Parts: sequence; C-alpha cells; structure tokens
Amino acid sequence: MTTLRVWAPLPPRVELQINGDSLPMKKDGRGWWSIEVDSLPPGMRYGFLLDGEGPFPPPRAPRLPDGVHGLAEAVDHAAFPWQHGAWSPPPLSTGSIIYELHIGTFTPEGTFDAAAARLDHLIALGVTHVELMPVNSFSGERGWGYDGTGLFAPQESYGGPDGLKRLVDACHGKGLAVLLDVVYNHFGPEGNYLGKFGPFLTDRHRTVWGDAVNLDGPESDEVRRFFVDNALMWLRDYRLDGLRIDAVHAFEDRSAIHFLEELRVEVDRLGDRLGRWFTLIAESDLNDPRIIRPKALGGYAMDAQWSDDFHHCLHAILTGERSGYYTDFGPVSQLAKSFRQAFVYDGCYCPSRGRRHGAPSTGLTGSGFLAYIQNHDQVGNRARGDRISHLVSPEKARIAAALVLTAPFVPMLFMGEEWAAGTPFLYFTNHQDEALGRAVSKGRRQEFSAFGWNPEDVPDPQDARTFERSRLDWAEPGRPPHSDMLEWYRTLATLRRERYDLRSPDLSAVQTRFDEGEQWIAIRRGSHQVVANFSTAPRRVPLFGQCGTALLAGSQVDQDAVRGDRLHAPPESVAILGPPAPKTAETTC
Amino acid sequence: MTTLRVWAPLPPRVELQINGDSLPMKKDGRGWWSIEVDSLPPGMRYGFLLDGEGPFPPPRAPRLPDGVHGLAEAVDHAAFPWQHGAWSPPPLSTGSIIYELHIGTFTPEGTFDAAAARLDHLIALGVTHVELMPVNSFSGERGWGYDGTGLFAPQESYGGPDGLKRLVDACHGKGLAVLLDVVYNHFGPEGNYLGKFGPFLTDRHRTVWGDAVNLDGPESDEVRRFFVDNALMWLRDYRLDGLRIDAVHAFEDRSAIHFLEELRVEVDRLGDRLGRWFTLIAESDLNDPRIIRPKALGGYAMDAQWSDDFHHCLHAILTGERSGYYTDFGPVSQLAKSFRQAFVYDGCYCPSRGRRHGAPSTGLTGSGFLAYIQNHDQVGNRARGDRISHLVSPEKARIAAALVLTAPFVPMLFMGEEWAAGTPFLYFTNHQDEALGRAVSKGRRQEFSAFGWNPEDVPDPQDARTFERSRLDWAEPGRPPHSDMLEWYRTLATLRRERYDLRSPDLSAVQTRFDEGEQWIAIRRGSHQVVANFSTAPRRVPLFGQCGTALLAGSQVDQDAVRGDRLHAPPESVAILGPPAPKTAETTC
Repeated sequence: MTTLRVWAPLPPRVELQINGDSLPMKKDGRGWWSIEVDSLPPGMRYGFLLDGEGPFPPPRAPRLPDGVHGLAEAVDHAAFPWQHGAWSPPPLSTGSIIYELHIGTFTPEGTFDAAAARLDHLIALGVTHVELMPVNSFSGERGWGYDGTGLFAPQESYGGPDGLKRLVDACHGKGLAVLLDVVYNHFGPEGNYLGKFGPFLTDRHRTVWGDAVNLDGPESDEVRRFFVDNALMWLRDYRLDGLRIDAVHAFEDRSAIHFLEELRVEVDRLGDRLGRWFTLIAESDLNDPRIIRPKALGGYAMDAQWSDDFHHCLHAILTGERSGYYTDFGPVSQLAKSFRQAFVYDGCYCPSRGRRHGAPSTGLTGSGFLAYIQNHDQVGNRARGDRISHLVSPEKARIAAALVLTAPFVPMLFMGEEWAAGTPFLYFTNHQDEALGRAVSKGRRQEFSAFGWNPEDVPDPQDARTFERSRLDWAEPGRPPHSDMLEWYRTLATLRRERYDLRSPDLSAVQTRFDEGEQWIAIRRGSHQVVANFSTAPRRVPLFGQCGTALLAGSQVDQDAVRGDRLHAPPESVAILGPPAPKTAETTC
Repeated sequence: MTTLRVWAPLPPRVELQINGDSLPMKKDGRGWWSIEVDSLPPGMRYGFLLDGEGPFPPPRAPRLPDGVHGLAEAVDHAAFPWQHGAWSPPPLSTGSIIYELHIGTFTPEGTFDAAAARLDHLIALGVTHVELMPVNSFSGERGWGYDGTGLFAPQESYGGPDGLKRLVDACHGKGLAVLLDVVYNHFGPEGNYLGKFGPFLTDRHRTVWGDAVNLDGPESDEVRRFFVDNALMWLRDYRLDGLRIDAVHAFEDRSAIHFLEELRVEVDRLGDRLGRWFTLIAESDLNDPRIIRPKALGGYAMDAQWSDDFHHCLHAILTGERSGYYTDFGPVSQLAKSFRQAFVYDGCYCPSRGRRHGAPSTGLTGSGFLAYIQNHDQVGNRARGDRISHLVSPEKARIAAALVLTAPFVPMLFMGEEWAAGTPFLYFTNHQDEALGRAVSKGRRQEFSAFGWNPEDVPDPQDARTFERSRLDWAEPGRPPHSDMLEWYRTLATLRRERYDLRSPDLSAVQTRFDEGEQWIAIRRGSHQVVANFSTAPRRVPLFGQCGTALLAGSQVDQDAVRGDRLHAPPESVAILGPPAPKTAETTC
C-alpha cells in the first residue's frame, strides 16, 4: 500500500482520479489530503478532481507523459541503473568552468541522450560544470523552460526522467558536474493549475510576471516546502550537483529566515546525509553581498551569483551599445572596477534604475561571482538572438574570451560561443493555447518595435523555424573560422588551469590600469598580466613591472610587441603575459 | 539671500507662493527646483504652486501654523535659547526605563509646556527616557499622530516648534532623555500633498495602509533622503536623543542597503559630529534578529526593538484572552521562553499568521528588546481603550509590573499605568474632511462589530469626548488605590536600579521554572529570583537554591511564605527574592 498525499487547502473536496475511478480523499489538517492506494505502477495515469472539477495533474507530478495538461505517471527512482553514482565534484571555485546549455537546441535531436553524446567536446574544452537551462515540464515541445508548470517532471520531449538521469550519469562518468536551472519566482502561463490547489501566489506584491509567489503570507510554509522539496528531488533523485536559482530578486520574502537561507540549510542537510557537496548559484540583480555572504555574517550563503555588472560593462565597451540597461555602462573604468570588486554599482546612482543601487562587495572573493560575455538571456533576449560574435569583430570576441577566462571569477560559457557559432539563440515558445500563442508572438514584436525594430524582422517565438534556427550546427566547430575560435578558447582554458595566478579569486590582489580615451585596460593577476586594446588604433600600454612579460597567449599580438616596460598593442588585440614556463622540471631530493 | 529648494519631479512647473506673489522656480535636475529669495521672516507664509494648482504646503514645512492644509512658516532653529544644550544621555540599556506618553492627553492642557511641568513625577518614578508619541503635524487638533502629513512640523495644537524645544530642554535639565516616535511607513489620509510633488508611494507593494512608501523604486533616493533628513532634523534641531521608528515591518525595501541601515549610518554620522549618542528603536513584528544585529554581522544595528511577544504572552496569561493574535499565546512556557530568548516565535508555526514566524535571537542581549505590559497600541487598539488594570485584578496588574521591571529587557511604561489610571486610552481623530471623518467613525464600529461588539458601545473616534475621556486624571495618583500602585512601581524601579541582577541583560543567564497546570513561574536572575503565581489558588513553588531568599519586594506575599526550599505563594502573588542588603557599608582601606 502507498499513501498518496496532496496539499490542497482551497477546494472543499479532493478526489484521486486513477484508472478511470474517482476515489474520495481524506483531509488530514493544514490543507493536506491523503488516500491509501495499492500501488502506482509505471504507465498508470493519475490526477486530482478538485471539488468535482478536473482532473488536474498533481502539483508534484514526477512525470507528465502527456504534457502539462495531462495526468501524472509515477516514477520509481530506485529502479534506475546508475553507473557512476558515487562520484561527487569538488566545490565550485575559480578553477571551475561552467557551460550553459539548452537541451532542445544543443543537438539536432534536442534530447538528453543526444547531449550525452557531445560530452567529449566539453571535456576537451576544459569545462567542469554543465549548467542545464530548465528541464521542468513546460507547455508544448519547444521552450526555454522558464515557463514551467510541472516543476517536478523533466520535460517529456527532452527524454523525461530516465533521459535526464542517463545524461547526469554520463556526465559523472566523465568527471563533469551537472547544475540545473530552477525557477521558483513564477509559474508559466499555461498548464498552471497550482492556484486551484492552494495559495501559491499572493497579490500583495507585483513582479514582472504579475502576482508574486507567496513566500511570506498565510500558508506560505507549504509553498516554500514545495520549492525546497523540488530542489531536494533534483539533487537526491536525479543526482544533480547543484542548482542555479532563477531571478532571486523577484522573491518577495520578508520572513526572518529568507527562502534562500532555508534552501541552503535544507540542501546542506541533504548533502551531509549523502556525503556530497551541493552548489547553489543565484541569479541576482540586487548587487547585494548578502546573497553570497556566510550565514554567520547575516548572509544567505549561496555559493555564487551571476555577475551581470561584469557582463554589461564588457559588452558595452565591445559593442558601443548604450540603450536599455547599457545606458548604465560604457567606461573602461567600470570594467576595471568590476575586475577588482565585481559590483560596479555598489551604492552609487544607477541611471536606468533611477536610484542608487547595490552595496560594496567588501570581504567577498571572486569565487562568489560568475563571469560571462554571453548567456541565454543576453543572447536570447535580443530581437535577433545575436551572440557577441555576431555583433563585433572576431578580434573583439577573442578579447572578450580572454578577459572572461583570466578573470578572478568563475567563468561561464554559453553553448556554441566557444566556436563563435553562426546560429542565433532566439526566444521560442510552443504554447498550445492559441490565444496565448498569438499574444506572445504579438507581445514580442511590440516589445522590439518600441526599440525601433521593424516587426517583420523580429522572429515569431511560436514559429517552429525560430526554434530550429537556434539549434547549434555541429559542422561548424570543425571548420574555419569557427575552429580557430575553438582553439583560442581551448588555449585560454588550458592556460587558466595551468596558471593559478590567472584563476586566483583574490580580488584584493587584482590591480588595474586603463585609459578611457585610448580604450585599453591592463589587469595584473599575480605575476601575470592581461592587456586588452579595444580600439582600432595601436596603443602603447605601460606594463606592470613586477610581472613576467613572456607572451603566454595572444590575439593579434606577438612577443615582439613587448618593448621594455611597454606593450605595443596592435588594434583589437589581447595579450596574456607572465613568467615563461620552466624549461625542465625540478625535483628537490 | 536664501535659496529655497524643493524636490518635485512630477509637475512640469513649480512656483513659490509668498506674500501673495507667485515666483517661478528653476529646475536644477533630478527633480529639484530652486529660487533665491530675500529671507523668510517669521510670520511670513509660503507654499508651492504645482503646474498652477495649489498652493500646497512644502513637503518639508518646518512649521504649519494653520494646520496641514495651510502654508508653511520658516523656523529659525539657531534663535532658540537652549538652557541645557550640552547634556547627552548614556546609551540605552537595561538600566533605562522608558515612559511612553501622548502629549495631547498626558495633561489637561495637552501641550508640550504642560508636559514639561509634570517631569518631577517621572523622575520620582525612576524614568530615564521619555518617549513621545508622534508630534508631527496631523489633521485637526486631536489625534495619535500616526496619520501625520507635515512630517517636519511639530503639531501646532501641542505648542509648535518652540513648545517642543522647551519640553526637550526641560527634560534635559532634569536628566531625562527624550525619544520621538516617527512614522516613515505611510502618510495620513488628510493633508497629504506629497504625491503631487513626487513618487513618495509605489503600487508595487500593498500594505495595511494601501500603497507602500517608495523605498526601492525609481527616484526612491530622494524619498529615503526625505525621511533621513527628517530624522536628522529632530536630533539636530530639536535635540532629541533618539527615535522610535513605527512599524518597520511595513517598509518594503529590497535595496542592498536597507533603509534602516542607511538611517543608522546617517544618524551615527550626525552623532559623531555633535559628540552625542542617538538611540534608534524599531517597532518590528518580524521577529527578525537582523533588526538589532550589528552591521558587521549583516544587521541593521538598531539599538533595540519592541518585544510584542513578551507583551502578548504575559497579557494572554493575565487576561485569558485568546482572540485575534492572542490565539498564538497563552501557555506559561511561552513567557518563560520569552524571558530567556525574547522571541517566542523564532521559526515555529504561528497560528494567526498561518505560517512559521521569526528566527532565533541567538547572540543577542536583552538590551536590544523593550518589555512592557501596555503601550498606546495594546491599550488604544481595544474597542474601549482598556488598560491592563481595567481587565484584571489589581493583584495581577502588580504581577505584570513586577515581571516587566525585573525582566532582562528595557522596561517601558505607558503613561498612567504606574498609578493604574482609571481613564482609558481610546482611539481618537479630528479629521477636518467630513466624509473621511464619517468613514473613520464607521470603520471603527464595523471593525469591532466583527468581534461581537455592539456598535453603540464603541466610542466614536471623531467625537471630542473620546479624546477628553482619554486624558489622564492627575488627581488619581494622590489617592488610593492609585497611590498604592504608584508606590509599587516606585519600589520596583528602585529595586531594579539598586540590584544589577534584576536588570542584567544577559539572556543566557536567565533560568526559568514553571507549571502550566498550576500557573506559576519562577525566574532566576543571578542571585535573585522572581516568583509569580497567576492562579487564584495558593501554590508551593520550588526555589532556585543558589539564590538569596530574602523578600525584597512582594505583592500579596511576606517573608514567612519562604519555607525552606519552597515559596508558599498565595493566590495572585509575586515575590522578588534575593540576598539581604548588607547591614553596614564596608570600606577597604
């Protein structure tokens, strides 16, 4: 016998619908309903009737074979034949390299299994952590995953529960950790029946998606538990190594124990029990050091957070873009500040927000920040899904890669950037509700019309071709110019692995020089230095005298450019200088 | 020449109205307008025309002689003849005793000057800090002050700016510190023209008063500055010693630097400059230790916060009330927990909130919490404004006093409680807008009808008699039974002053014993112990063996009740036991 339980404080009556039968459930108190059933064999569908309406899929459906509107199927996690279950990665550090990918477009097949077949590419690149964009169930077959409604069920079109497990197992077998993007700040617009079960949302706060998730109102304990249990499920049952938590700035939680603190405690408790270390990474635009400060110092103790400031200042310098939030960025001085302090906005006035923003990162190390020149948002939220390599010269894209991969932060790459993929990454959806689909298509066009785009030039998210165009083309990395860029990324990753100075997380040791007019920056990293000339003119850059001056890697530059205490930096060049490698290995006897 | 400046980002045109003239002002950027004028002599009224509409009083009007709808008058703070300017109180501690009073009803005259004439009563009682309910300008002549709209102008009916200064000066002359209640979480419904000047409110969050104050949205810097400058004005120009910040749980602020942190920094900066120490006390119902934790531990560094949990559990035990939030309270075990940890709800499930509430007070000391058995809210928010002495026997009221005045927290008394005043403290208003007045009267009746009150029995807030009935009767303290209660309070305050054990803030040293069925509690305070029997039956209470057993003060109990290791506690009694005072003073030569 199995007891099936569901939290549904709203309906006066709940029935289990299974095998065509409707079985009345019993209320236990605090909104939980239960029923004893024989078992839930694979293949058998079940759901709930709420006050006679429905059936609706269970809020915690472990599998949704028929999609977000359909009934659930049980999953026997114990039955999966793990091959590499005992493996656990080292904690996230500046020695890690994260690779963000979207299952649906990473491979032609768009499945977990197809992704598993591409892991050698990541290994050769030096990647240590794969970060999957959300794989929870969303409406239709194509989507980014942030509109999830079946939060406990891996998307069926990707391969469902077993597919995800096979991918995780394959990664572990090759020494790759796997992080998963989870969305706890809103639910998708289609297939969201949670509001019929309980007060998952509250109208006391408004977010960009409408009503906020109920994290501190009446009955919020169970809402928080829903998300905590979701996190624990991924880590325990799917053996994921960590989570990337979407847009924590949209959490409206004034509890004395913030949801992120609670999540950290619960995740660590599971880790202690299993003898594993789990990584929690927050996407936060608050520039609030509390997110990653330890609990004893009043923090929420996330391992790291995304560093949009670093991205934005580098992007603004490279592209010259100044619209939207790029209005806040542009000077090379900001990039220098970001190398030293992560947050550019640390309490100063931020024009696009119309107020002061952030707080100083005092006492934090670089391992608490992710650095990237692209990610799904920065590419996909553009009208045409442009990667940095579509916007700037190959030389500038190489500068970007060099700065990300010598930064005192945890580098993150977005799938395909390592070969300057020619494919865009567009915004795509596959809403089944036609009216919703039309609204999304129209909304997307209107959004970009406001920025001066011709609506005809904005790809339609609902169009299957928009999704298909976003697929990586695996013929590219084998041929120039893509193969050259790939080689550059591999060189940089290797250098980072071999030279501690280039991955040291000690922000207080970072020194910077720059010239705003001449558009160059020099960054000292221990006995190494990185010099980038963003301009289209040659520049003479004063070198840090205490550092080595052997050219370890360079784009558009060679060793002859080092002349005394200056680097004669050619246009759009970047040089990584340091002490030469010792010719012979020394052994002390 | 004087430059007059006003922040008004909303109107396209701002004019200064003065002496019947309308003078166009110049926009400086970021929403500030300015104009040069000869001077603003006392008696001259001024205000602003916003896009031709108005005139409206300045947001920071220093004086509103004609009330909240009228024009402002300048105040020359430098001209006031301070007598005791150099005096500064010691920091707030458990050696302090706070006395909360409402200027309008503390004396028959209802003025600052009349209050100043009553200070000897407070001195004799052992009070160290006077806490004034809000004195900012509100609509009409009668009100609690929380519906303020002229936040920079002391209420004219109390005596205006000079009256407040005379009261503060008189307090300082007698060694009394003065704290002021300030309201930064909403504005009153009448006379609030701030929304015409700028985005002081935001509809992104809802509070009990409607739209939240804009503390983190666009243009919030100036809104925050408005409140910070208000705080600095009271401390600098009126020489107040600290502020009590109303309902900080209604602040909706997700900035990386919380408004309270910013306020603390700015207030401390002023204190450094003036060589004074300013006290900041928060009213918080969050049970969040961050409010009073130091900045280095991620806290907001308030000196103290109100401790409603202590009040509620003591009130629930004494009265047996269990409705509203008292549904969360009742057991003696909670009172014992509150004596040891301040927060009763420190992460456990709170029925009236329908969720877990609070976090542990680990590492905090008792000096961070105010303890009281009554305050303006707990009395005045009852339908009939009942004080504890109106609800329970005199013996129980004496128990309450003894527990408050031997608690490891900062005791706070509400005016008149020291003589068990026969007068109520009712909710009263004097809105000039008739429709608003009627709505408030009706709303009050409806609110209490829901709790089973006959609407006829609920005093009308707008009725002047409701205000008049709330005035203290100064004939009472001179005659029994009021004089007996006054003597009891004086005895307790003296004992607290003389015995460090009874005021020690060390929560970890507090030990408690209690019997839920027998309704008694024993609290060890160093070498002292306090035993209270709440029941109407005699109880044998086991004493803490390590403590003195001399009866230092008692209600309904005498030394004979101590029999070996037991106290034979009579019904509704309280005993404070400790080592006897040394007979002779010893001097070491």
